[in-house]
Amino acid sequence: MRILGVDPGLSTTGIGLIEASGQQMHALDWLTIETSPALALPDRLCELGKDFSGLLADLRPDLAIVEQVFFAKNARTAISVAHARGVLLMHLTQAGVPVVEITPMQLKAAITGDGGADKQQIGAMLLRWLALEEVPTPADAADALALAVYGALHHQEIVAQSTK
Amino acid sequence: MRILGVDPGLSTTGIGLIEASGQQMHALDWLTIETSPALALPDRLCELGKDFSGLLADLRPDLAIVEQVFFAKNARTAISVAHARGVLLMHLTQAGVPVVEITPMQLKAAITGDGGADKQQIGAMLLRWLALEEVPTPADAADALALAVYGALHHQEIVAQSTK
Repeated sequence: MRILGVDPGLSTTGIGLIEASGQQMHALDWLTIETSPALALPDRLCELGKDFSGLLADLRPDLAIVEQVFFAKNARTAISVAHARGVLLMHLTQAGVPVVEITPMQLKAAITGDGGADKQQIGAMLLRWLALEEVPTPADAADALALAVYGALHHQEIVAQSTK
Repeated sequence: MRILGVDPGLSTTGIGLIEASGQQMHALDWLTIETSPALALPDRLCELGKDFSGLLADLRPDLAIVEQVFFAKNARTAISVAHARGVLLMHLTQAGVPVVEITPMQLKAAITGDGGADKQQIGAMLLRWLALEEVPTPADAADALALAVYGALHHQEIVAQSTK
């Protein structure tokens, strides 16, 4: 089963794809989609949508885990992330990919057992689950892989059900 | 020149189309796009995108005025509006429609001369500018028409430039 993690952002969206079968999993690909701050918002969203729908056609995920907007920090950033997120969620549904949304805290708790885990703890779990020798970079792509691992640990039943 | 006003929302998006030539303008159409709260967010965004892109093909606007997210009020609502807004802005750019974004306060100030104007003042200006006998309903569609009137009053040069 191919599980896609998506860490949405207007400037940088992290993408991580893993192959999982039960507790066995490995990383297939990770990257970021970036849009230029020099462009107007509608143009950035259009670019993001085009790149993401192209990626979906290539990566063919069976399930996507998309991080929720964390709006306690900065309202302006949250709004900007939500614009990008709307475009990403729409394309996932258009492509027929089931989506699970989780908060950053849920992700941390599920992966490390600690909702306040830091990047290093997340990184250490990524190495373990994906049998990687180094934590993938950039950080947004590593976050996306962690989302995909979360999907493998907790949501493989969604795909099993939808393919029945 | 056909000017589209868009008042974005996840549950209800207001749409208003006017024909304008200089200070002469009249309403062509107004309506709302609604998505069911019973659906999951990705499905609602997919539905909104489908309906809106169909509308754009029918309405063929030369310019769109899209209201910005007002995030002083309620962060959760603002995030929800921004998800919808991302999808709407992306479709406008995909359809090649130039977009101007304005805040609710800018709209009120530009239409009535008062940034704190209420719905009734906006409605009265709509009747005057669009030579209507009654304020259009529902309210979201009336807001969208007001956005389109704003476009006619302040941004016709965008279309003039882009068609040069």
